[in-house]
Amino acid sequence: MSSGALNKQFIVMVGPAGSGKTTLTASFGKWLEENQGYSVGYVNLDPGVEELPYRPDVDARRYVRVRDVMEKLRLGPNGALIVSVDMLLKHAPELVSEISSLPHDFVIVDTPGQMELFLFRETGPAFISKFKELGQVAVVLIFDPTLTNRLVDAVALRLMNLVAQLRLASESIVIINKCDLLGEGSEDLLSPDLTALMEKLKGETGVLADMAVKLLEVISGFGLASRVVKVSAITGEGLQELYDLLHEVYCTCGDLT
Amino acid sequence: MSSGALNKQFIVMVGPAGSGKTTLTASFGKWLEENQGYSVGYVNLDPGVEELPYRPDVDARRYVRVRDVMEKLRLGPNGALIVSVDMLLKHAPELVSEISSLPHDFVIVDTPGQMELFLFRETGPAFISKFKELGQVAVVLIFDPTLTNRLVDAVALRLMNLVAQLRLASESIVIINKCDLLGEGSEDLLSPDLTALMEKLKGETGVLADMAVKLLEVISGFGLASRVVKVSAITGEGLQELYDLLHEVYCTCGDLT
Repeated sequence: MSSGALNKQFIVMVGPAGSGKTTLTASFGKWLEENQGYSVGYVNLDPGVEELPYRPDVDARRYVRVRDVMEKLRLGPNGALIVSVDMLLKHAPELVSEISSLPHDFVIVDTPGQMELFLFRETGPAFISKFKELGQVAVVLIFDPTLTNRLVDAVALRLMNLVAQLRLASESIVIINKCDLLGEGSEDLLSPDLTALMEKLKGETGVLADMAVKLLEVISGFGLASRVVKVSAITGEGLQELYDLLHEVYCTCGDLT
Repeated sequence: MSSGALNKQFIVMVGPAGSGKTTLTASFGKWLEENQGYSVGYVNLDPGVEELPYRPDVDARRYVRVRDVMEKLRLGPNGALIVSVDMLLKHAPELVSEISSLPHDFVIVDTPGQMELFLFRETGPAFISKFKELGQVAVVLIFDPTLTNRLVDAVALRLMNLVAQLRLASESIVIINKCDLLGEGSEDLLSPDLTALMEKLKGETGVLADMAVKLLEVISGFGLASRVVKVSAITGEGLQELYDLLHEVYCTCGDLT
């Protein structure tokens, strides 16, 4: 069937607009090649990106480009983005065929600029399901330091991880990119041991804080969901930890669903 | 200070691209005017929208337009959307001043096409915090029926509601728009009584299903978070239920944080 490697390891970069998916795709790919000696395939599934800091082996823009959709269908940027990501689904057979032929050990998949188009429409779950037929899949869920400013953000981060896992039926790792911009006090918020975070939340009043503590109690019982890795795509900080955690995902978890 | 009504009721429409925020803003506004006799002010905070089915009393495009940002800064649609929503924050003083002068009982706020730009950057929380100084705020979190296809989607919906509440520090109501497109079997998934959903999930195997059941147990102890309203912005179905639930939010909950 495929001339490519039989059991690929997929790393799917998912995150809101501006979180740094594309930069991390380039820098983590380079790190895997240079520090670990792997061959890495690059897949761009963002039909709206203008310039890429890596050379994609498979590129969604061969089939769909947001700028073309804006012009041809006379749509605004909002509408064109939606239509473009939905169009990707129609081209899934060609794209998946190209991807299955890649000869690399690791395949890093860069997803649409807007996370919600991948997460809350059909395109994301459909592609992930195809990737699972070709190998093992780990989702890397990327946020920037804005999501670490307040106690409740630390809870929102973990909940978003669960949402991604539920929607994509795949294990996911939360990372905070641009970690050089992290403020003080973020250690307790991002620690895999959720105790300190829960204690701080107990000091807050209100229904939401109560609920947040109870949700964290549930999450803390489920290992990986509570881990947050700090990464800088620019300095390379945290890439080793991300790599180690990916190994854990591939080795121990298998299929979550 | 303000020549407008002193205690406004804000309804903030938030939802992923394509969920129907703009259509619902128009149809729910009209319903409030025609069926309840209220005066309704319309605020457009989406700098990327091309056409509106309502006449905005306050319009973010007076200050920022995504198409202009694309041209002037030579950005692609992804980058221009991010920059535009961040620019809104800089124009918050003018926009909030315009909004505070509105004489209406209800103010419906239509938010950027991409939910994540409002939810995961600083613009959304900052505007909501300003609205709270002018009156009472309820967030309406809108999804389309894609998010009701599977059992786990019903869990993801409730988790997204919590994420919105945590980020925006405001009570929110989840609605499924375009409910005429709902598939069979969605009743159990959307019921405020989460028992049926939990029972079904217990029949599924896997770590995620286990965790989902435990999360739902927590959520079901916190009233409103479990409610999902089915609405059709086109036929008007569910608008009365949305109105009733908004009243509940304004009357009983006050500030969640």
